[in-house]
Amino acid sequence: MTFLDELRALLGPEHVLTGEDTASYTLDWRGRYQGKALAVARPGDTDAVAAVVRLCARHRVPVLPQGGNTSLCGGATPDREGGTLVLSLGRLNRVRAIDTDNDTITVEAGCVLQAVQQAAEQAGRLFPLSLAAEGSCSIGGNLATNAGGTQVLRYGNTRELTLGLEVVTPDGRVWHGLRGLRKDNTGYDLRDLYIGSEGTLGIITAATLKLYPLPVARCTALLALPGVEEAVQVLSRARAGFGAMLTGFELMAGYCLQGVVRLYPQQRLPFSGVSAESPWFALLELSDSESEAHARERFEQVLGEVLEAGLATDAAIAENVAQSRALWHLRESIPLAEAAFGKAVKHDVSVPISRIADFVRTTNGLLQASFPGVTHVIFGHLGDGNLHYNVAPAPGQAEAELLALQSRIYQVVHDSVHAHQGSISAEHGVGQLKVDELTRYKDPLELELMRRIKLALDPDGIMNPGKVVRV
Amino acid sequence: MTFLDELRALLGPEHVLTGEDTASYTLDWRGRYQGKALAVARPGDTDAVAAVVRLCARHRVPVLPQGGNTSLCGGATPDREGGTLVLSLGRLNRVRAIDTDNDTITVEAGCVLQAVQQAAEQAGRLFPLSLAAEGSCSIGGNLATNAGGTQVLRYGNTRELTLGLEVVTPDGRVWHGLRGLRKDNTGYDLRDLYIGSEGTLGIITAATLKLYPLPVARCTALLALPGVEEAVQVLSRARAGFGAMLTGFELMAGYCLQGVVRLYPQQRLPFSGVSAESPWFALLELSDSESEAHARERFEQVLGEVLEAGLATDAAIAENVAQSRALWHLRESIPLAEAAFGKAVKHDVSVPISRIADFVRTTNGLLQASFPGVTHVIFGHLGDGNLHYNVAPAPGQAEAELLALQSRIYQVVHDSVHAHQGSISAEHGVGQLKVDELTRYKDPLELELMRRIKLALDPDGIMNPGKVVRV
Repeated sequence: MTFLDELRALLGPEHVLTGEDTASYTLDWRGRYQGKALAVARPGDTDAVAAVVRLCARHRVPVLPQGGNTSLCGGATPDREGGTLVLSLGRLNRVRAIDTDNDTITVEAGCVLQAVQQAAEQAGRLFPLSLAAEGSCSIGGNLATNAGGTQVLRYGNTRELTLGLEVVTPDGRVWHGLRGLRKDNTGYDLRDLYIGSEGTLGIITAATLKLYPLPVARCTALLALPGVEEAVQVLSRARAGFGAMLTGFELMAGYCLQGVVRLYPQQRLPFSGVSAESPWFALLELSDSESEAHARERFEQVLGEVLEAGLATDAAIAENVAQSRALWHLRESIPLAEAAFGKAVKHDVSVPISRIADFVRTTNGLLQASFPGVTHVIFGHLGDGNLHYNVAPAPGQAEAELLALQSRIYQVVHDSVHAHQGSISAEHGVGQLKVDELTRYKDPLELELMRRIKLALDPDGIMNPGKVVRV
Repeated sequence: MTFLDELRALLGPEHVLTGEDTASYTLDWRGRYQGKALAVARPGDTDAVAAVVRLCARHRVPVLPQGGNTSLCGGATPDREGGTLVLSLGRLNRVRAIDTDNDTITVEAGCVLQAVQQAAEQAGRLFPLSLAAEGSCSIGGNLATNAGGTQVLRYGNTRELTLGLEVVTPDGRVWHGLRGLRKDNTGYDLRDLYIGSEGTLGIITAATLKLYPLPVARCTALLALPGVEEAVQVLSRARAGFGAMLTGFELMAGYCLQGVVRLYPQQRLPFSGVSAESPWFALLELSDSESEAHARERFEQVLGEVLEAGLATDAAIAENVAQSRALWHLRESIPLAEAAFGKAVKHDVSVPISRIADFVRTTNGLLQASFPGVTHVIFGHLGDGNLHYNVAPAPGQAEAELLALQSRIYQVVHDSVHAHQGSISAEHGVGQLKVDELTRYKDPLELELMRRIKLALDPDGIMNPGKVVRV
């Protein structure tokens, strides 16, 4: 029997796709990475995943695990050789258990993030991971890339939300590490090694995740700010004044929000006059275990002090849930509006929060010196030091002209990130996009240690080859 | 030149101890593990640590890194062969940097935990790691064992408090991983692999740690509870009602606190009559970013509901800082009082919070069946599912008689932990005490993966041999 015959015998022919049926699995959702697959396998449970991987190991067929296929770095797209098996986790989409006394949920890798959020909410709990792709990305992909998002300031990245994992190893065995423990010091931290390894060390098939109480109320405020320095000072005061109630702190260049309200006239800024023209805005979110009134009271006090100190020029506190949603909607509309600003060269970077103002000023200057007139589309999670620092065409510049400069722009921005002790991939991972960039910026010793781990755990190199690290 | 000659030439003879001068480094602080050292090296900085390790690698001399020597599992004590070099990190005790805008502190491994707490506080920030040995343990040891303590419920273990590490590898190179970033997805998570590896993969020489705003107020309450089931229900209500204000939730068997006030008459319970005789107590701590009055108000409301629901029989809310301290002092006096209860067989275990009541009931029963009359000295961090489940002599039983049963008691308790999907080492690590226990309870695949990592990162096996995992 050929490999494909064996695969069909294993899963049933309906769960082995070939030829044109693989199309949606070999192109990433933004249409930037086109690969080719030997086949797509759709196993229905962990044992079937393990059996498929054993088959691949025997035939030395490379395996690419895929969830919602929403990677921004080509992490879930095969190469063009056509020798890779895409292993879709889509059918592993069960919520296996919810334990409200332990505040944990155990889910399979193929669960869509939003389904996990909803299952938690139905049990009266919060699963706080939240990001733009939540309606289509899978929790397995979130784990594979240690996804971040908008609630990291309070709840951490996917890593901090995970207690246990079930993993299929590259030789097709199952590590049963689905522990629901908040303290467990019995050996090396395999869990966090698999998280963020983008399927290059094994396949995460299920996870036990932390839940939190649902907040009684959420309240949002928008601030108009004169500059990034002031935003950093406001963040510091907000952390002190709100404590762990502060669950979001998003920074947005004025250009972004002014673009959103220009493009989508049904949306509006809660400011007029000079405040509406502010060079920067920040969106703050409080989650309150008491009441909406209490959250608003806290906003009034702390933001009052911030205004008095001249750190912000204006503030609008949402008066009800609808207004809170409208403010979030402004923030969430930026990526959509970006398309209209002209296709941008995008960066997902982080620097220490104390260096972020200098980073923005310096990098803007370097870009203007080399690429006069380009537009800075800057927004992101200031509370995590994480900016989506995107570069759009200059007024009148053709998209193609800018995209031709892409690798030079990457280098200017990433060199600056590196000089500011930052990370060139804050929350989107490495995938295939940044493998070579890593060799430019990472300590060679660190790359060597990564390679040794890859060789130790995947000696035949069959797991998602070409991603994260080259062996 | 011999190895010792070279070592003296490297560090200066005053920083190489031999013979009787090594006494305090070869016996653990509780006097339970007596080892023997080839010598004790006291390098003064990271480069000197790396040079010592290179020398050891060349001579194939095993290296045991040591901080405050407060391990409860013999993790920092050499074996009796006398061939191991103890590498004391004590001279690496500088606070390298505090960045209040980034809310980070960078410290060397030999800093005493309390010194880190104090440096943070002087900068107006909180470093929340807090545990009994904080006056003498070092942050390097906390990192090596992923130490827990009393604030984990809100702030996590040492792992969750760490952003970056500097590590000397077993071949004597330095990994410069001192990042102050809250988001960084550029490859495998080496940081968390070194954290908790107890010096078996390399030597942590410095770390960049998270800081938090200092709470404006802290307030403590003591509850009298009818049973563990009720304690778990109170925890659930407290998490919902207080949100992240809840920074401590300690459970204590009545026997413990009643013993404390009997032994130390200057201490007293805030209850009288039947409440003072309660079978269980819980200590709750709130940290408030508003005011002490607000914290008390919150306590009154939520604990009022708890009393009304019959989940607790009595509650005492501290009316000022002195009373809060007095309540904590009751809890902190338990380990001291334990000595007077008779030397106990100790366990540091965790189970899912939802199973903790069943675990206590079942395990108490199993012990009484096999060892009639033994005393259950149970206390710990309920919010983390972590109990110090200690077994003291039966009334009138000699200590020696109980200690002779130690390995049988371990087995009864750890078998029960395992049956409840728990961990036999929640926050104290493995050291030499639990290496064989791990082989009994861990999935063989997990042990194999640990061994592969050990071989990949320490191929010559010179780092803290005999601890955590046997290769």
